[in-house]
Amino acid sequence: MTDFFKGIPAIQYEGPDSTNDFAFRHYNPDEVVMGKPLKDHLRFAAAYWHSFAWPGGDPFGGATLERPWFGDTIADAKLKADVAFEMFQILGVPYFCFHDEDVRPAGATFAESTKNLETIVDYFAQKMDDTGVKLLWGTANLFSHRRFMSGAATNPDPDVFAYSAATIKTCMDATIKLGGENYVLWGGREGYETLLNTDMGRERAQAGRMLEMVVEYKHKMGYKGAILIEPKPQEPTKHQYDYDVATVYGFLKDFGLEGEVQVNIEQGHAILAGHSFEHELALARELGIFGSIDMNRNDYQSGWDTDQFPNNVPEMALAFYEVLRAGGFKTGGTNFDAKLRRQSLDAEDLILAHVGGMDACAAGLKAAAAMLEDGKLEAARDARYAGWDSADGKALMTSDLASIHDQVLANGTDPKPQSGRQERLENLVNRYL
Amino acid sequence: MTDFFKGIPAIQYEGPDSTNDFAFRHYNPDEVVMGKPLKDHLRFAAAYWHSFAWPGGDPFGGATLERPWFGDTIADAKLKADVAFEMFQILGVPYFCFHDEDVRPAGATFAESTKNLETIVDYFAQKMDDTGVKLLWGTANLFSHRRFMSGAATNPDPDVFAYSAATIKTCMDATIKLGGENYVLWGGREGYETLLNTDMGRERAQAGRMLEMVVEYKHKMGYKGAILIEPKPQEPTKHQYDYDVATVYGFLKDFGLEGEVQVNIEQGHAILAGHSFEHELALARELGIFGSIDMNRNDYQSGWDTDQFPNNVPEMALAFYEVLRAGGFKTGGTNFDAKLRRQSLDAEDLILAHVGGMDACAAGLKAAAAMLEDGKLEAARDARYAGWDSADGKALMTSDLASIHDQVLANGTDPKPQSGRQERLENLVNRYL
Amino acid sequence: MTDFFKGIPAIQYEGPDSTNDFAFRHYNPDEVVMGKPLKDHLRFAAAYWHSFAWPGGDPFGGATLERPWFGDTIADAKLKADVAFEMFQILGVPYFCFHDEDVRPAGATFAESTKNLETIVDYFAQKMDDTGVKLLWGTANLFSHRRFMSGAATNPDPDVFAYSAATIKTCMDATIKLGGENYVLWGGREGYETLLNTDMGRERAQAGRMLEMVVEYKHKMGYKGAILIEPKPQEPTKHQYDYDVATVYGFLKDFGLEGEVQVNIEQGHAILAGHSFEHELALARELGIFGSIDMNRNDYQSGWDTDQFPNNVPEMALAFYEVLRAGGFKTGGTNFDAKLRRQSLDAEDLILAHVGGMDACAAGLKAAAAMLEDGKLEAARDARYAGWDSADGKALMTSDLASIHDQVLANGTDPKPQSGRQERLENLVNRYL
Amino acid sequence: MTDFFKGIPAIQYEGPDSTNDFAFRHYNPDEVVMGKPLKDHLRFAAAYWHSFAWPGGDPFGGATLERPWFGDTIADAKLKADVAFEMFQILGVPYFCFHDEDVRPAGATFAESTKNLETIVDYFAQKMDDTGVKLLWGTANLFSHRRFMSGAATNPDPDVFAYSAATIKTCMDATIKLGGENYVLWGGREGYETLLNTDMGRERAQAGRMLEMVVEYKHKMGYKGAILIEPKPQEPTKHQYDYDVATVYGFLKDFGLEGEVQVNIEQGHAILAGHSFEHELALARELGIFGSIDMNRNDYQSGWDTDQFPNNVPEMALAFYEVLRAGGFKTGGTNFDAKLRRQSLDAEDLILAHVGGMDACAAGLKAAAAMLEDGKLEAARDARYAGWDSADGKALMTSDLASIHDQVLANGTDPKPQSGRQERLENLVNRYL
Repeated sequence: MTDFFKGIPAIQYEGPDSTNDFAFRHYNPDEVVMGKPLKDHLRFAAAYWHSFAWPGGDPFGGATLERPWFGDTIADAKLKADVAFEMFQILGVPYFCFHDEDVRPAGATFAESTKNLETIVDYFAQKMDDTGVKLLWGTANLFSHRRFMSGAATNPDPDVFAYSAATIKTCMDATIKLGGENYVLWGGREGYETLLNTDMGRERAQAGRMLEMVVEYKHKMGYKGAILIEPKPQEPTKHQYDYDVATVYGFLKDFGLEGEVQVNIEQGHAILAGHSFEHELALARELGIFGSIDMNRNDYQSGWDTDQFPNNVPEMALAFYEVLRAGGFKTGGTNFDAKLRRQSLDAEDLILAHVGGMDACAAGLKAAAAMLEDGKLEAARDARYAGWDSADGKALMTSDLASIHDQVLANGTDPKPQSGRQERLENLVNRYL
Repeated sequence: MTDFFKGIPAIQYEGPDSTNDFAFRHYNPDEVVMGKPLKDHLRFAAAYWHSFAWPGGDPFGGATLERPWFGDTIADAKLKADVAFEMFQILGVPYFCFHDEDVRPAGATFAESTKNLETIVDYFAQKMDDTGVKLLWGTANLFSHRRFMSGAATNPDPDVFAYSAATIKTCMDATIKLGGENYVLWGGREGYETLLNTDMGRERAQAGRMLEMVVEYKHKMGYKGAILIEPKPQEPTKHQYDYDVATVYGFLKDFGLEGEVQVNIEQGHAILAGHSFEHELALARELGIFGSIDMNRNDYQSGWDTDQFPNNVPEMALAFYEVLRAGGFKTGGTNFDAKLRRQSLDAEDLILAHVGGMDACAAGLKAAAAMLEDGKLEAARDARYAGWDSADGKALMTSDLASIHDQVLANGTDPKPQSGRQERLENLVNRYL
Repeated sequence: MTDFFKGIPAIQYEGPDSTNDFAFRHYNPDEVVMGKPLKDHLRFAAAYWHSFAWPGGDPFGGATLERPWFGDTIADAKLKADVAFEMFQILGVPYFCFHDEDVRPAGATFAESTKNLETIVDYFAQKMDDTGVKLLWGTANLFSHRRFMSGAATNPDPDVFAYSAATIKTCMDATIKLGGENYVLWGGREGYETLLNTDMGRERAQAGRMLEMVVEYKHKMGYKGAILIEPKPQEPTKHQYDYDVATVYGFLKDFGLEGEVQVNIEQGHAILAGHSFEHELALARELGIFGSIDMNRNDYQSGWDTDQFPNNVPEMALAFYEVLRAGGFKTGGTNFDAKLRRQSLDAEDLILAHVGGMDACAAGLKAAAAMLEDGKLEAARDARYAGWDSADGKALMTSDLASIHDQVLANGTDPKPQSGRQERLENLVNRYL
Repeated sequence: MTDFFKGIPAIQYEGPDSTNDFAFRHYNPDEVVMGKPLKDHLRFAAAYWHSFAWPGGDPFGGATLERPWFGDTIADAKLKADVAFEMFQILGVPYFCFHDEDVRPAGATFAESTKNLETIVDYFAQKMDDTGVKLLWGTANLFSHRRFMSGAATNPDPDVFAYSAATIKTCMDATIKLGGENYVLWGGREGYETLLNTDMGRERAQAGRMLEMVVEYKHKMGYKGAILIEPKPQEPTKHQYDYDVATVYGFLKDFGLEGEVQVNIEQGHAILAGHSFEHELALARELGIFGSIDMNRNDYQSGWDTDQFPNNVPEMALAFYEVLRAGGFKTGGTNFDAKLRRQSLDAEDLILAHVGGMDACAAGLKAAAAMLEDGKLEAARDARYAGWDSADGKALMTSDLASIHDQVLANGTDPKPQSGRQERLENLVNRYL
């Protein structure tokens, strides 16, 4: 045991009336909801990058967090892993997620970086065995190093495409080796700063081809996990090609990959794209590409990705309602892509941020389940569209403009608006909270 | 002649040094640019709704504009048409655009509304013959009347779908009869206020089916014009299904209509969706669905559609640069979907707003043409991607992750970033302005 | 009794487990919290304009609501009043608020409008006597009529200033006569569309002088109620002079009115200005100008004022926490400046929207009271600043740069950052919800 | 001479038709406009931080720029100064601006940091003598180091206040020694991340006291330069106390400092606060606190400070129009608080970015001067308000509500709206561009 979390107990469920900071009030992992334990509904994962690799910088200030494992040796990386797995166990999160860059020291060459990654993957494998913690997904960081400043797959320089492809291979290999249930692609630099120097057609083709290669490699390796794209509209780029769920869908259709690739939806990215989180979740469900979620919270008054831990239970309820309506997670889960505020310096803060977030998710999911089980919301929605289930309604969908026109004329059709009852339904939702 | 524009002369080109408010300084219709007269590049159209049907209201105030034709008789509608065509001639705009609702009094029944539309269509036909003014596009207003409050094609009530389909038919008929070069669909209510009462899957299917019917009817009638969708992210709805160009593309792909339908892109809608206008234009070009533009300007500090007349020439230049790169307009054109400020009460304001907008577009287009003819921007862009034209670059696109990985290892690939030179290119653009 | 709300019972408190749509689950008016009944904490008011005068229009569509009292006769106005007071009684709201324009038919002249207002004021007086419902505040609508299109006090035309001043006098008279506890000014048109035609200096001086006149008239009449300004950043104007609380404060200071005028803060306006609601409340408290609130909810993804009924209890809790820290309402109260969605057509919707909003406020206030009574949040905050209460801390505030500099040098001062513990405090807040 | 800018010539004015990238097309320093050379109107300054201290990082990536002077020795700092002054001379900018942190290596102690600063100040003094380049303003970086993570003056820890005060003293001393014409305060961390842990009242008082100390020290030292506050609404904090010009004004009034302190207005900060740049400039002028500008450009689609070099001439014209209406700069100037895009790696990029920005400013200023000299815009504005110059208009301002009311009744006042003519005025502006 390291002493980073010294004195912090494993977090236990103590119920809603607990006033113990270091206890769950809502997340009882084994509580059965809609026939399944909460832990299997939520499938929580901790994010290696924010929790263990981020030093607390922002565009106007440097590091605030001082961690004993900050450094660039394998020993540092192992200490980081030791602490990380201690946190996973303290929290009881069944999963974690990582980028290559988070877990290994960068090498002087591609070969050396890969070797370092392999060393850590072996170290992880042992720790996973020891603890039972699993890998929700792995991914490649193709955005931090200056070589990626103009994109990875979409770079004007084919060498960067090659370097990115090679890196993805090593990260997919690592993910497969560790039994990761998904492989994620976030294209933080796959976009542009200015159209003036950008060939959007080429870049789109490059991005499409890279994604095909990923899918091909998955099949070649017999990998059964899901390939996930994580949409984001902008930041760091002015425009990112994976803007939102609808944009990713069009892209997948264009390359014939809509059956092969799903989306990993982040609350903060949804907000930046001008959508509610539940919108993005509902749309992904309707388009058949819902995969997983990156759980965090964006400050509504800030125009950049704030990646805060979630705490608004009514918002969580609306999100998990859409997750449950999508049939819940298959390979996906609830990854906390959330970071401490840079003023939250202490080891305790790291634990408590997760405790609060897990509790908010659990409370939200339980409310969502209650909504669905009660069924009043679904009944109201179905009643609103009931006309479409009638013979006349169904016939309309196979008719044509001229025939419908004649019908309208003949019948003197004059539709009478019905109340949409939004406030009544909002009140209903509040009843489950 | 009516006396609405009494004393206002036909607007002539007088050159950049003119200080005559009622003259063009940049729009010389017959000036040949890149082998084509400006008027054929720009294909200006005036919008009937904003210019002749809008009384100046906003969410906090009623009508400010008092027009002699405001009323609900056929005589009013004819006076409106008289004035409209006078404006078209004063400005020398070759085209106009309209919704049914703009041009005819609403009838008590669908049949009566249609009859009124037909009366005005005949009146238009005569005026078009007399003046040579043509129809850029027609469209149906399926959003103002309370029957459409919960959507048109996407309404939970099939009767509204039917009423909408019948209305579209009459508007397509009118467009065809008047030789309109396009038919446009803007789904202002095709979206939702709250997911709680919304079945997004059904609504998407309804919208898709309606669009198919439109395409089927086009072919049935042998109509050669283009079918255009006009994306908008929100307002009046919280979320509109035709959010932006990328969203529309995914929707078209889903229904197999990407070869049948194009987009009519509006500056203000692009801004509301978090994009620059030139982004939407460039994307539509790359996706092969560029059709036409609704030219206006959104206030960058206002979160709603301000529909102002354009006046920033550098922005126009970037927009027309993308239009020219798309090969220019085929059936499309530059429709001023712009309205007077509600404090701009006078007939003169209506003329001058268009004069300023036309001049800004002309200046922008000429600058864009100069950029393209000079070719420095294209040369710089091509040079940036030149590596992809090499044999190695081309080979990459047909390779696979494992092979590329081995290559990277073997070659010790270590890409060296090159400057993106954004500022230099921005300076270059300014040289043409 | 009218039959508009026929069949709808008076709303009673039934407790959190009630599933009766027409009951309060949290708002028990006589429940004592922090030594005061909930009804006296919350001081709920219904807004005449949204509930009874608004026809459901938006920028893209006309009326959707059809009310038997829509019309322009005194009889219509009395029927409207009858229904309004029935709603006040069904809901048990102790207060209401109105603009002149909401309650009386406009007359052909100023004199006639005033006479109509007086007629309705007399009618109100009788109904208030009969029901015990009181007036929270009155105000003048100086933004809807076209005469105000370029501002009221800030109009370039002195006649409009005069007309506005005269109107304010009649509305203050009405408010005083009805025992209104506050008089509110919202300057919806006191701003500009373009700086090009605006003399900001003059307009500011005009606005300041009008406010002085209001304060002078208050004192002349011996009126003891509060004068309140309601900040809003924009919409309908591009820029409104009463942008936010900080801007209003500077304006009051400039005219020496900071002791005479307070603010009426609206959630939706706070959001549009880039602030959280609680920010505006806290700032007004610190500046000593907190007066009253307009309670509603802005859609976070919409760039205009959506004026929805509030329903997010955690947000309400943070707002009422600041209200309670300000000492609670004195003359102010919780006015629902919220409107039905335009698709919510039914009388029931109007009642249920208020029921849900009142419940959300009550739940929020109770949570806020629990936070304050527990005191952990205050204790944590005080501990964070404890250094400033030491002798050294206090001395710093009366020292000077050179002395402090010497001290820092002498002491080798090297401050050590302490965790801000944001997540821990957010968890703590959730404990009271 | 260093060889960083090797081969880049001193930039000369070559006129609008020049196609030389390394020449001015609009900025002819000695061209006389409105009786003053352009260089004296514009008073250009280069910003040390962005141009010489920023490594190109963003929230998702590390350094991209590799500069020979990056390091932490005095020798590095001197090389940086050598290159900086070479740039100033190549560009012909008469001024520069700096933070302490930009120019000196940080020391292990306050004393050592001060000593390093003094060393560089001496080095600067010599170079300024040699080149004639002057200091527009100095400032202290009280936001980058982790000690400032919770604020400088507004820190909960008095030690940080003390450290900040001491630092400001050293920076004011440096500014005075170098003949700086202004001293600037930007309170990047003077705000909060969450109200939960913030005592806004205390923090406001601390900020006010610090500002008083600065003013007191200025007078004690007999310094004649201006003290400037630079407003910004947020980023890095969620809320910054110096939100915008109006907020700063209220703050100054509160502490009685409105005659002592002016504002340094940045385009990007104006945009982030929901204002146009010209709004902030016009407001500062009307409030009598206009001081200086930080010239850059914010991307309208990005929600954070993008600090791009300006290039939109029509926007520059509107900005400089307000500067000229304020009487032009006194001690202030046009500081390029603009940074290269992080992909713009080359020394040439740094030069060309400034060349383009200087040209855009010069073109904008010349257009603004032409507007003012022509006087049509002012004439139109004056005519609009002419009624207020009449005896009746003037009398209104000293009247009272009751008297005005009686007048309105007696006269049957019924104001008639006049067109605001926005579009016509926008066209007029375009005539000067």
